Amino acid sequence: MSQNIYDTAEFFAGYSAMRRSIEGLEGAAEWPAVQVQVPDLKGKRVVDLGCGFGWFARYARSAGAASVLGLDISTNMIARAKADTQDQAITYEIADLETLELPEASFDFAHSSLAFHYIRDFGRLAAMVHRALVPGSHFVFTIEHPIFMAPRNAGWSRDADGRRIWPLDNYAVEGDRTTDWLAKGVVKYHRRLGTTINMLISAGFAIRHVEEWAPSEQDLADHPEWAEELDRPMFLLVAAER
Amino acid sequence: MSQNIYDTAEFFAGYSAMRRSIEGLEGAAEWPAVQVQVPDLKGKRVVDLGCGFGWFARYARSAGAASVLGLDISTNMIARAKADTQDQAITYEIADLETLELPEASFDFAHSSLAFHYIRDFGRLAAMVHRALVPGSHFVFTIEHPIFMAPRNAGWSRDADGRRIWPLDNYAVEGDRTTDWLAKGVVKYHRRLGTTINMLISAGFAIRHVEEWAPSEQDLADHPEWAEELDRPMFLLVAAER
Repeated sequence: MSQNIYDTAEFFAGYSAMRRSIEGLEGAAEWPAVQVQVPDLKGKRVVDLGCGFGWFARYARSAGAASVLGLDISTNMIARAKADTQDQAITYEIADLETLELPEASFDFAHSSLAFHYIRDFGRLAAMVHRALVPGSHFVFTIEHPIFMAPRNAGWSRDADGRRIWPLDNYAVEGDRTTDWLAKGVVKYHRRLGTTINMLISAGFAIRHVEEWAPSEQDLADHPEWAEELDRPMFLLVAAER
Repeated sequence: MSQNIYDTAEFFAGYSAMRRSIEGLEGAAEWPAVQVQVPDLKGKRVVDLGCGFGWFARYARSAGAASVLGLDISTNMIARAKADTQDQAITYEIADLETLELPEASFDFAHSSLAFHYIRDFGRLAAMVHRALVPGSHFVFTIEHPIFMAPRNAGWSRDADGRRIWPLDNYAVEGDRTTDWLAKGVVKYHRRLGTTINMLISAGFAIRHVEEWAPSEQDLADHPEWAEELDRPMFLLVAAER
């Protein structure tokens, strides 16, 4: 069984209080960049890996998807997603992405938001998603950026001149990182950006877009505090084609 | 006319003294990783963009290439490459990669080592290389890694606990970086890793491999000082297919 810290009271309370959990996709800074990469969903069979409260599942249906399967390891999240959704074409199921097997060639689009950095074996997952998609379909996902994940001490620091810096180290040392984000002892798996790309290519995907998210000028006018993101990226967005 | 600081006495003396300039490819830490990506060169027409002293050009011929065109902006380097090469199938020419135009579909393989981070308009260059290659051919190059390029103060630092850290900032701020490497005022152009990948995709290339070079255990046994490269990557290797 994989880590399921997401159902602890501490993590779930923290997760539920996040802007993106309350406002949905519009509350996520990186969503406009993700949306650009999402293909036309009309009539498509969509799977969302790590669906949380179901915000993307409902968006996909509003964009014309024929059906959506939302999967998450968290019982609490799936319960909340079901409670918040009145749509017979959306199905939510509890699933462990480390061991999940989807039926072959049964989906036309796969999405995931900020889930795969909790997955130890991304190569296995990428190969499974490739099998589950029909040829020509797209796979769009975000993860925490490896620059954000890598350091032993992953928090802002200051240099001798008092300037904000991100104290990068251990970038090439792939593997688990234990953090105290929302709850104590959350385990994430750091992979170099190149490793994620190469695993997708090995699985058979063609890389279509790689975006290390940064705020636009308009974003900075609306949210001056996002200027940090110019110094080190927090989100990595990848679009691939099967 | 692009920057040509490489012909200044200061830069050229420093460049000439580098281990890779004296020993050739075997003196470059990242060469084994590059070599794995270089396809079978037998009978191929090869172009090397930023050929320096001609080490790769001569390697390509020893690996069976039919012909090699080595291009560099530095008069001194081209003169030295010519002096060191006795091979009628290798041609060296002075060329500015910012404006270079190669004949269409005239090469079967393109290589470049640590040159493109000096190029302002990589998108133009990638599109030109795509046109110059025949379908199915490969393009393998290294650049300085953007993590290495980005910071205002691109040098090792220490955190409050005395541990070595790389003071990353300005990662999303693309554009020129002026450094004092080998000579004062060398201008390099920082692009995010994703930007380099997306420019290749836009030019029509399929991404085959992305490697943020790090030393192997054997490398570390032979060169303990390379352990720094585990903390932040210096070299980015990309292999693409036309």
